[in-house]
Amino acid sequence: MMGGDYAPLEAVKGIRLHLEQKEKPAHLVLIGDEAQLKPLLEEQQINSDTYTIVHASQVIDMHEHPTKALKEKQQSSIAIGFHLLASGKVDAFISAGNTGAMMVGSLCTIKAIEGVQRPTIGAYLPRENGKMGWLVDVGINADCKPENLLQFGILGSLFVKYVWNVDSPRVALLNIGEEEGKGNLLVQAAYPLLKENDKIEFVGNVEGRDVFLDKADVIVCEGFTGNVILKLAESIYDIAKRRNIKDEYFDKFHFEQYGGVPVLGVSKPVIIGHGISEGPAFNNMILMAEKMIESDLMEKIKASFAAS
Amino acid sequence: MMGGDYAPLEAVKGIRLHLEQKEKPAHLVLIGDEAQLKPLLEEQQINSDTYTIVHASQVIDMHEHPTKALKEKQQSSIAIGFHLLASGKVDAFISAGNTGAMMVGSLCTIKAIEGVQRPTIGAYLPRENGKMGWLVDVGINADCKPENLLQFGILGSLFVKYVWNVDSPRVALLNIGEEEGKGNLLVQAAYPLLKENDKIEFVGNVEGRDVFLDKADVIVCEGFTGNVILKLAESIYDIAKRRNIKDEYFDKFHFEQYGGVPVLGVSKPVIIGHGISEGPAFNNMILMAEKMIESDLMEKIKASFAAS
Repeated sequence: MMGGDYAPLEAVKGIRLHLEQKEKPAHLVLIGDEAQLKPLLEEQQINSDTYTIVHASQVIDMHEHPTKALKEKQQSSIAIGFHLLASGKVDAFISAGNTGAMMVGSLCTIKAIEGVQRPTIGAYLPRENGKMGWLVDVGINADCKPENLLQFGILGSLFVKYVWNVDSPRVALLNIGEEEGKGNLLVQAAYPLLKENDKIEFVGNVEGRDVFLDKADVIVCEGFTGNVILKLAESIYDIAKRRNIKDEYFDKFHFEQYGGVPVLGVSKPVIIGHGISEGPAFNNMILMAEKMIESDLMEKIKASFAAS
Repeated sequence: MMGGDYAPLEAVKGIRLHLEQKEKPAHLVLIGDEAQLKPLLEEQQINSDTYTIVHASQVIDMHEHPTKALKEKQQSSIAIGFHLLASGKVDAFISAGNTGAMMVGSLCTIKAIEGVQRPTIGAYLPRENGKMGWLVDVGINADCKPENLLQFGILGSLFVKYVWNVDSPRVALLNIGEEEGKGNLLVQAAYPLLKENDKIEFVGNVEGRDVFLDKADVIVCEGFTGNVILKLAESIYDIAKRRNIKDEYFDKFHFEQYGGVPVLGVSKPVIIGHGISEGPAFNNMILMAEKMIESDLMEKIKASFAAS
């Protein structure tokens, strides 16, 4: 509840939106400063049967060093969240707080699923036809081996399949040419791995010009290029807004609205939100967590990697 | 004269534009099929004192294999152009033809300036304030060493200084975070090289969101990410056009209009144009070639690399 620039009010608003919308919502465990949370929950008229507050006396600030802060602030909402998740007291953990601390907690407290070399986070790729694509990795793994790209493809494919209900998601490799054999050494080596793997529906290379076209459901790249694309796309929204361009497609480049992204490849559902998340974003994150649990995504990933 | 989708007519139109505009234009050596060129030049009323035709009986098609075509078609306009350039009979060579053949010709016939490890091509980065930035490399060098990135910075800086008349061009490193130490292994190693080099004005890291902001005159990256950015930016123009968005800034993402880009780091001026170049693009390429010659850019680059 304490994560993000507008915490805890926007998180509370997100809960209200969620409860209004869902007939049988999940029971919410709200981690944060009880003295701050209680009046806000009452003010927003949220039925106290729907949640349990777990008091956290500390907060990890957005600019604190992730590893250090997580180690030293054991009573922070993020540290407590990971503790509850690891011990099975909650089924998913959502936060719009310090992204680095969320990643460190995911990797060190929750840990990778056996067989997953590098857990990863992705980004939404809005398309003009209303569909959504998934770009993975977007910055956690700046240096990758070919096998990592293959695994990003498998993880992205399972996520899109079970959380977005896309049958046989198309997986593409981001490259600088269409033909096999193009690109740098990394993608040249990754191409045959993707092509030969029977867990994914590989559709070949896509280029920069294809990123926003509906050519693939999952686009795989190392985290350096992915991060540059994500931030460049966000800047297109800023430019359009600054220039007073009103267009519903460019509005979709406002990535905060989508809520958050899962850390794929760790053994429990963790969702990281943007620092400037508002009510609807928190609602979307809760919906995503529910979907990840209901679809048993973690077990699907475990089964997929156990078989390899 | 035979390069590009609208050859040779648009090249001829470009020459007419150029002659109308320049009081003392360079003498133009027009390489191509004389039988096709002559009537077009007459039709466009171009004074025959301003040019010399060098007949070329062959053309390298846009889809031919660069190395093979250049070797086998010695009478093609591209092969003849490089021959004239190498032997000093022309001072600069411009073509909107087969990009691969232009690169192979540049590297094998003209060769790199001593000390330049990897010649490179860049791309225009239009800014909202009307200024222009330079992104380098954009695809020729998909795998780079840290020293290559430093050299791209030096080459880009000299180009922007002497051809665009920008005093002390600001050089930035494309990265996924602002602070020194961020990024993948390549940029982590390149950062101190750029920082400590006294030939450039290094302003630190920029991120994907800064690419279209006026934070640097030259942005350095390996050719994989640069190529993805260039093609993604071009696709933004296509999207805006498709969605009927009329905006003078997004119009600037129509990169063909700028003309062409120089191959930086080879010993003579070579300019490669987009296949769909029209008259104004050809005019811009001639202007750029003149500027590269007048400013003695090649000698400035040679001096800079000789001193290192």
